[in-house]
Amino acid sequence: MTWLIAVLAVIAVAVVYVFYNYFKIRKMSEGTDDMIDMAAIIRSGAETFLKTEFKTIILVVLIVAVIFTLFVEKTSGITFILGACMSSIVCVLGMKSATYANVRTSNRARETLSIGETVKVALCGGSISGLSVQAFGLLGLVLTILIFGKMDHEAVSTGLIGNLQCNPTVMHASTYSLGCSLVAMFNRVAGGNYTKAADISSDILAKLRHDMPEDDSRVPNTIADFIGDNVNDIAGNCSDLLESFVATIASGMMIAVTIYEDALHIGSQAITEATFNATSIFPVLLAGAGLIGCLLGLGFAAVRKMGNDPSRELNLATWISAGATLILGLGVTALVFRPVADQLYENFALGWITPWVSSILGIAVGVAIGSITEYYTSTDYKPTQKLAEIATEGEAFVITKGDAIGSRSVLLPILLIGIALFVSGKLCGTYGIAISALGMLSFVGATVSIDAFGPIADNAGGLAESCKLAPEVRVITDKLDAVGNTTAAIGKGFAIGSAAFATVSLIVAYVGNYTSIGAEPILNFATFTVVAGGIIGGALIEYFSALLTDNTIESARLMADEGDRQLSVPGVLEGTVRPDYNRCIEMAAKQALKKMLVPSMLALLIPIVGGFLFGVEFVGGILVGATIVAIPRAIFMGNSGGAFDNAKKYIEGGFLQGHGKGSAAHKAAVTGDTVGDTRKDVVGVALDIFIKMMSTVANTLCTVIRSFVLIK
Amino acid sequence: MTWLIAVLAVIAVAVVYVFYNYFKIRKMSEGTDDMIDMAAIIRSGAETFLKTEFKTIILVVLIVAVIFTLFVEKTSGITFILGACMSSIVCVLGMKSATYANVRTSNRARETLSIGETVKVALCGGSISGLSVQAFGLLGLVLTILIFGKMDHEAVSTGLIGNLQCNPTVMHASTYSLGCSLVAMFNRVAGGNYTKAADISSDILAKLRHDMPEDDSRVPNTIADFIGDNVNDIAGNCSDLLESFVATIASGMMIAVTIYEDALHIGSQAITEATFNATSIFPVLLAGAGLIGCLLGLGFAAVRKMGNDPSRELNLATWISAGATLILGLGVTALVFRPVADQLYENFALGWITPWVSSILGIAVGVAIGSITEYYTSTDYKPTQKLAEIATEGEAFVITKGDAIGSRSVLLPILLIGIALFVSGKLCGTYGIAISALGMLSFVGATVSIDAFGPIADNAGGLAESCKLAPEVRVITDKLDAVGNTTAAIGKGFAIGSAAFATVSLIVAYVGNYTSIGAEPILNFATFTVVAGGIIGGALIEYFSALLTDNTIESARLMADEGDRQLSVPGVLEGTVRPDYNRCIEMAAKQALKKMLVPSMLALLIPIVGGFLFGVEFVGGILVGATIVAIPRAIFMGNSGGAFDNAKKYIEGGFLQGHGKGSAAHKAAVTGDTVGDTRKDVVGVALDIFIKMMSTVANTLCTVIRSFVLIK
Repeated sequence: MTWLIAVLAVIAVAVVYVFYNYFKIRKMSEGTDDMIDMAAIIRSGAETFLKTEFKTIILVVLIVAVIFTLFVEKTSGITFILGACMSSIVCVLGMKSATYANVRTSNRARETLSIGETVKVALCGGSISGLSVQAFGLLGLVLTILIFGKMDHEAVSTGLIGNLQCNPTVMHASTYSLGCSLVAMFNRVAGGNYTKAADISSDILAKLRHDMPEDDSRVPNTIADFIGDNVNDIAGNCSDLLESFVATIASGMMIAVTIYEDALHIGSQAITEATFNATSIFPVLLAGAGLIGCLLGLGFAAVRKMGNDPSRELNLATWISAGATLILGLGVTALVFRPVADQLYENFALGWITPWVSSILGIAVGVAIGSITEYYTSTDYKPTQKLAEIATEGEAFVITKGDAIGSRSVLLPILLIGIALFVSGKLCGTYGIAISALGMLSFVGATVSIDAFGPIADNAGGLAESCKLAPEVRVITDKLDAVGNTTAAIGKGFAIGSAAFATVSLIVAYVGNYTSIGAEPILNFATFTVVAGGIIGGALIEYFSALLTDNTIESARLMADEGDRQLSVPGVLEGTVRPDYNRCIEMAAKQALKKMLVPSMLALLIPIVGGFLFGVEFVGGILVGATIVAIPRAIFMGNSGGAFDNAKKYIEGGFLQGHGKGSAAHKAAVTGDTVGDTRKDVVGVALDIFIKMMSTVANTLCTVIRSFVLIK
Repeated sequence: MTWLIAVLAVIAVAVVYVFYNYFKIRKMSEGTDDMIDMAAIIRSGAETFLKTEFKTIILVVLIVAVIFTLFVEKTSGITFILGACMSSIVCVLGMKSATYANVRTSNRARETLSIGETVKVALCGGSISGLSVQAFGLLGLVLTILIFGKMDHEAVSTGLIGNLQCNPTVMHASTYSLGCSLVAMFNRVAGGNYTKAADISSDILAKLRHDMPEDDSRVPNTIADFIGDNVNDIAGNCSDLLESFVATIASGMMIAVTIYEDALHIGSQAITEATFNATSIFPVLLAGAGLIGCLLGLGFAAVRKMGNDPSRELNLATWISAGATLILGLGVTALVFRPVADQLYENFALGWITPWVSSILGIAVGVAIGSITEYYTSTDYKPTQKLAEIATEGEAFVITKGDAIGSRSVLLPILLIGIALFVSGKLCGTYGIAISALGMLSFVGATVSIDAFGPIADNAGGLAESCKLAPEVRVITDKLDAVGNTTAAIGKGFAIGSAAFATVSLIVAYVGNYTSIGAEPILNFATFTVVAGGIIGGALIEYFSALLTDNTIESARLMADEGDRQLSVPGVLEGTVRPDYNRCIEMAAKQALKKMLVPSMLALLIPIVGGFLFGVEFVGGILVGATIVAIPRAIFMGNSGGAFDNAKKYIEGGFLQGHGKGSAAHKAAVTGDTVGDTRKDVVGVALDIFIKMMSTVANTLCTVIRSFVLIK
């Protein structure tokens, strides 16, 4: 319990620091009247969108919470709502701080013309998002434990009406995680639709149809595009990684219960209640250690005098956070597991230090995946350069080559994940895999801060363009934006890697959940029910992707037509009449909200419907199939999209001899980028939430599903 | 044995009929001097390509055969070579007959201006391919049985050097199938590269860069494109479906052994040697019944006076074949299983008629998948029409929408496959699933005939265009070509559906093979080795796709550049100087052959390397993962490609008001079509061979893999 209080104290420090930064940002000057105007439109657009979106989310959350309370476990509705609240708080904080920080970043660039100073403002804004994700995610879990008590393998409870028995402490962890997942799913689906419809339509209008710069204020869809960055790349990303972070900790806690029950059944002599407590509390403490690490890393960046190399500064902040987390993690491991060193599970191959080694393995894989991602998507390496070169042959070649790069980039990360799963499983079983996932996410505060840096810099650049600031300002913000792209690649590596690990550990936990105590947990793909589930699970991933893609493109089409209509109004194209930004903003929001419900609910409904129809093993098949398809697809979407984006930038930067901005090759590359937009920012980022959410739902409802099966 | 002689007699009739048609075609007139010239170039180009390709194939086949003979089973090298030979014979026959039939089809259209007459010539050409596939595929199997004896569950043998015991009769069936697979893989990989590099480059040159009709004789790549149709859509397709057909029969025979061994172990009272013989010979007899069905259907089409609706004529031929196969199938089932009606396996849920019901289930699923494919890819339905409409918004929208259609089209077919697997498994276990797959392929002779009809008509149209025949001729051939596209969709439904079924039954058989006798066959996805295999298997599918895509686009790029160079030679664009067709033909062949080895060998090597590294269960994981990813990907590739192709045709047909040939929308649709070309004709069609081949290799080498594992 003292440990939990300590974690709570760390969280308190982090929250204070978050608000300190928040008010520091707000106090900074916004710049010219134009800038103040534009920034206000962006801010109010983003706020309106989130408000409207949350009306639907609140409704769904309440309905689901009531169902949980009635039929699953009576207090689990509360933890579900708590998860949804934490996720929402982080979204709002992130979005607000980013919409304050963007204009202040461009103003700082305008006033100082110093890269270092500008980086500081953007990173300060980003760190609000990053630290909130880690602090609030952890806060909810700690509150759950303080209110409802720690994990208890023997606890039994039922729903208010339903009389199926379940373990309430497991339910608290999983429903809390599920609350976070649901909000994240809505945010990603709606935010992705919003931002990409706006982005695609303004790209097409500006670059392909009317030969203007991307962020030109004559393009009616521009402001919606700026808002979209905040809605998806900030709010969506925050809730996404909060979900990953929480789901990973929760899966570690749930697995602690499963492995203890198994050990008890086998009658392992060494294992005691103390072992169980150690394994169940360790994930929370490791996450707390990570929070300290992030505070150190980001705090150091805040006080340090920054040079002119933004990439170096951001990397420094990340590596200090990671390094501190590693060292503190060792301390926490020793603290937790050394006292029970003679009471450990047999498969802790290296003794008490095993979980720490698992966490390092996770970090190593995350970094490696990030580097591979960078190789395939950065303009510094061959794949993207070749993609830019082939743009001279036209659109069809660019798309096909991009497809090939995306597919090719899948192999190495997945080989790494596969090998790490194998090693981690050998080292420390299912628990080790959950801890590896947590290792990747233990300094999520730092990675999200850097992630959020990107869209803030992007917005700052956009504001500089549309408020016609001096070109030197745009040079600075462009530099920041480019760095943001690269660091985002590493962030994506951690996200997809941890999703793979977390889902696998959740699936194994799920199989353990439905297996009667004492029997070996088996999900047998040599039976037809499971195989059928497997291939259907894979197909569902394709279908989910299709829904998101179709919705986005439909919205983009409507917005492009509207933009074209406005540009044909006399004076708009000449710049003498201001286009009707609000109409585009409303349109983007309306479309996004209209289309969000169906895809968001799929992950919730599939395991339930599948389970009621064909039983728990069929659902197990679905989970495996979905995971096996989703991981390569997510990597494909992210990397082909990233390569398209950067190939375009490569040409725009003038690196392709004889084919600059406005050339046929450039237009082909813009087409590639536009195709990639939906892939990387709508579909790719939603897939990992999808599989984690399905697995969490399956775990949560396992007992219910097991009891009602239509076809046996 | 009498039954086998009967099958042999049917095969003999079919072979005689094939050669009768072959010489009938050859005797027809070729038309004008221009046509004779062009046709000769195409024929010699295709022959040269196959000859060069087979030099490599023979080498690889011999090496693999020696390895099998030395280390696996001493006579299995012979059956492996036999499989490769049968596949090669069918390729050569198909290619030769098609290159005779194409020019005679356009000449018949020129001379008679009758659709019915023209259909007859093309279908006569196509039926040579179709009937050879079924007749020669079956012939090899029957010969194997006649030479080496029927399936014997107790037989034991070893390699010449290796001393690992295996069942030689199982080895004969699986190596025969593997020989067919290897040739099919080479053909698809090299043929796909050849045809698409030529097709893409000539499309881009003609339609996008120089505003000429597709088959204009001024485009230097045109003839290579015509040759490609014969190399891939005829020769490649023949060996592909021969492989499917043979692999499915072989898997049925192998499963007969597994289930009998299991029953013996459990000590089932009812089961006798007679039951075993019935199940092991039934697949061959059912396939023989199908061959009679096809002879009837195609024979009827040959003698019938044809009307002006080619679609009706082709459908009639297919349905007569299918109907006759169904009825004869019932007879065969009664003949084989009624005598052992009281000695059947317990899970033959409906008694002796069960296998027949399984085969009908397969046919039903195949037809349903075909219809769904048609819905998503035909210009008669909304998806393709919408795709054509969105082409007015430009390239990026077309591609993204096409991606969405492809992904969306995956769900229904896979739900059907999943449900059918479930039902078929319940009806008749693994054996039922193998028989369902065989059901789909039992009248493969008819479906391949119709498949081959397409490229013959396509070539005929091309010849009409480049030899400047009267426009009425082109109208007739265009009509035939369009019908070919639709019927091809149904063919693809059968191909992918049967691949799914065959692979699943092969995987289950594989798990049975490595499980020690008496133990329940388990492939447990709740263990990390298997999960790791699963996700790596999925990634390998992406990697294989990337290899094929990259190779194709690289060849296409070189050919487009060469075509552009030639078109800049004075006189070529004006039509006064003949372009250097041969240079393009040689280039296509050189590229295709250079790039075929690595992707073709992957499927052979993965199970071996994976098995030696991490053992049989890891390979099991790979097979499942690869299948789960490959099935939706193959459907995606086929359907997005088909929709792109037909959306372009929809616009070219003038159905999109205000946007005809040469419009911006048309160009965007051409880009879509070009992207789709690689997907549907290179990657999509190779994926099903890939998974079947891996599964067959794993089955063949199971005992070897089990004995040598590096990391346990």
